[in-house]
Amino acid sequence: MTTLQDCQQLDAQDPLRDLRDLFTLPDATIYLDGNSLGVMPAAAPARVADVVTREWGTDLIQSWNKNGWFAMPQKVGDKIARLIGAAPGTVVATDSTSVNLFKVLSAALHLAAADAPQRQRIVSERSNFPTDLYIAEALCKERGYELVLVEPEEIAGALNDQVAVLMLTHVNYRTGALHDMPAVTAAAHAAGALMVWDLAHSAGAVPVDLTGAGADYAVGCGYKYLNGGPGAPAFVWVNPKHADRFWQPLAGWWGHATPFEFTPDYRPAPGITRYQCGTQPMISLAALECGVDTLLAAEAQGGMTALRSKSLALTDLFIQLVEERCAGHGLGLATPREHAQRGSQVCLTRDEGAYAIVQALIARGVVGDYRAGDGGRHKDILRFGFTPLYIGFVDVWNAVEHLKQVLETAEWKRPEFNRKHAVT
Amino acid sequence: MTTLQDCQQLDAQDPLRDLRDLFTLPDATIYLDGNSLGVMPAAAPARVADVVTREWGTDLIQSWNKNGWFAMPQKVGDKIARLIGAAPGTVVATDSTSVNLFKVLSAALHLAAADAPQRQRIVSERSNFPTDLYIAEALCKERGYELVLVEPEEIAGALNDQVAVLMLTHVNYRTGALHDMPAVTAAAHAAGALMVWDLAHSAGAVPVDLTGAGADYAVGCGYKYLNGGPGAPAFVWVNPKHADRFWQPLAGWWGHATPFEFTPDYRPAPGITRYQCGTQPMISLAALECGVDTLLAAEAQGGMTALRSKSLALTDLFIQLVEERCAGHGLGLATPREHAQRGSQVCLTRDEGAYAIVQALIARGVVGDYRAGDGGRHKDILRFGFTPLYIGFVDVWNAVEHLKQVLETAEWKRPEFNRKHAVT
Repeated sequence: MTTLQDCQQLDAQDPLRDLRDLFTLPDATIYLDGNSLGVMPAAAPARVADVVTREWGTDLIQSWNKNGWFAMPQKVGDKIARLIGAAPGTVVATDSTSVNLFKVLSAALHLAAADAPQRQRIVSERSNFPTDLYIAEALCKERGYELVLVEPEEIAGALNDQVAVLMLTHVNYRTGALHDMPAVTAAAHAAGALMVWDLAHSAGAVPVDLTGAGADYAVGCGYKYLNGGPGAPAFVWVNPKHADRFWQPLAGWWGHATPFEFTPDYRPAPGITRYQCGTQPMISLAALECGVDTLLAAEAQGGMTALRSKSLALTDLFIQLVEERCAGHGLGLATPREHAQRGSQVCLTRDEGAYAIVQALIARGVVGDYRAGDGGRHKDILRFGFTPLYIGFVDVWNAVEHLKQVLETAEWKRPEFNRKHAVT
Repeated sequence: MTTLQDCQQLDAQDPLRDLRDLFTLPDATIYLDGNSLGVMPAAAPARVADVVTREWGTDLIQSWNKNGWFAMPQKVGDKIARLIGAAPGTVVATDSTSVNLFKVLSAALHLAAADAPQRQRIVSERSNFPTDLYIAEALCKERGYELVLVEPEEIAGALNDQVAVLMLTHVNYRTGALHDMPAVTAAAHAAGALMVWDLAHSAGAVPVDLTGAGADYAVGCGYKYLNGGPGAPAFVWVNPKHADRFWQPLAGWWGHATPFEFTPDYRPAPGITRYQCGTQPMISLAALECGVDTLLAAEAQGGMTALRSKSLALTDLFIQLVEERCAGHGLGLATPREHAQRGSQVCLTRDEGAYAIVQALIARGVVGDYRAGDGGRHKDILRFGFTPLYIGFVDVWNAVEHLKQVLETAEWKRPEFNRKHAVT
């Protein structure tokens, strides 16, 4: 049996332990929701204040040049590129994940229409994050395509000569299941389809090598594992071999080859710049840069490889402690045990009370979240994200101890934990 | 002849003078570029710091409910609605102007296709802000429509039975010319076309009554006269009679009727909420709210009507002083003299040196901007925006005095003022 002392020793031996000092952690809280909104980097308040009071307040319009505002999407994009196996100059930080997905899916369908016009389907997972499905559904409706939704084990079988695009989220938001990016990309290509990845739950969480996998398009989120702040701009990557072949339809002036010539005709910039659209929210973008910098700070300690090792150790420990210490309380495991199939989160299932148990834990300062089941394949889940930058092994011990107490005392049955809110 | 003393007296009598205290004005600067980036509200640094350190840093994920993040686009949208003649619940502050224009043009084309399928044209002004033309061009390309660009005096003649949508910017970014919104909207409707307005240079600058004019769709910018900070989210309004008829294709989860049910199928929310797409940048959105609040603070002094009176007095005075004091220096006027045709800016033309004169003025602390001509109808311009919230009559006097000195001393001919930068 693992003990608290074992966990203390793991923390003492953790080479990444000091990275925690890059964050301002909330008091009396074990924050296991960095997969939903990352913790605030300690550098963010001063940086944001400087953007507001000096760059905006004092330098005003001159900041577009003087303080590099116009180049911020590329500057932050280049930093994100280092986390996802992308070359410099191939990523921009801009807009939202949903908007960026619309851009890349639109471009992918143009590419497919040119190279393989008989292919009229987009395939995705039924349990993909819904906004991805909605964007694909709307685009299919506009273009007369068909959106085919399958379960993970059915993906390979669905890849036939009708498929233009396979669109997947690398780590599933519900289950934490991780796709094998190189193998799935290769399977899509073998079937003649283009591969679009959503890295919302993997950028900054697991090693990603878009270039090595030969993926075609990718988008991702700035406010989860990248710690970019609430609603931080998202990012978009396009394989350089595709970037110049087509426009994407959100052809705003920031994607123009010479935006300050103010020509009436659109002429797309080369490369990833044409995936920009309008002016970006600089204050939020500056906060995102602080968040990405926390991940780059880990490069000296081994970067994403080292973070991944610690992440797996944390999620292994959580699963083990839950099974050792909370046995007999009806908890199941929705997340794969196999390392190669697991992201940086663990989802527990329970037939009854999952929502209320999460609320009772939050009241104790253990912040995870709840996602409702679908009445079928997917049960209600208690979802816990483990961000190795700022979560330690004793945190895992304490989180499980609280869970054990919540279950043993049945405090989750109190009425105040059973009133559902609109958003959790 | 108007004197400095006259200007001092105008300031002393100005009932809106105290509104200047709502802003932190840059030192030793006469800022005539609020039409490009509004000045920082004095309340913004503290508000932004609170969003960062308390809402993000401490409350973290709970802020979506506790601090109202999820409702922020509607909350700020409702405040903007008061400035543009829109009903509560019909505006959201979200995404960029370009992205929002894509949404409304997409929806407008769906509406036109249903009601008048033979109409296959979008008409706009050749000198409309380019991003509007690019978005329309891209959408026309996607849908097989034609974008017809005309001069302002040709608009009426272009409105025939082929036109699905007339898309105009209310105040022209180059010339400051103001369209008669009710008359132009009526003309579009009489011709069977839908009317889309871009309010980028009019929201917060001139009185706008979308409801009274019976317009169909509108978008606008948060960082110009709304003082929302660099790249602040934009806004979108849809006439309630149209809102529920169609989806717009950027159908992200924030536009879903029940986003937290995480259903795989898209079901659009009723009303303007379906014009949302993905998660919004909360820090920048909070700054935007501070900016909009500066305009709402003027409501006690007569609101947009009072601001408009002062704006016209400021631009009248600027034109008069330039003509009295800078005569013989080759300056022309690109902005209409007629009040009913003028926004809140004045653009001067000069055959030679417009760029360098603007640079020499900036070096003296008089911040306007330069826009290149097109070698034809449009000359190079020196552009000056007059924001009545924080610009006074003595500012106008001093700006013209600097302009006079720059021209009389020919200091604009110095090499340092003639080196063009990428962005001004």
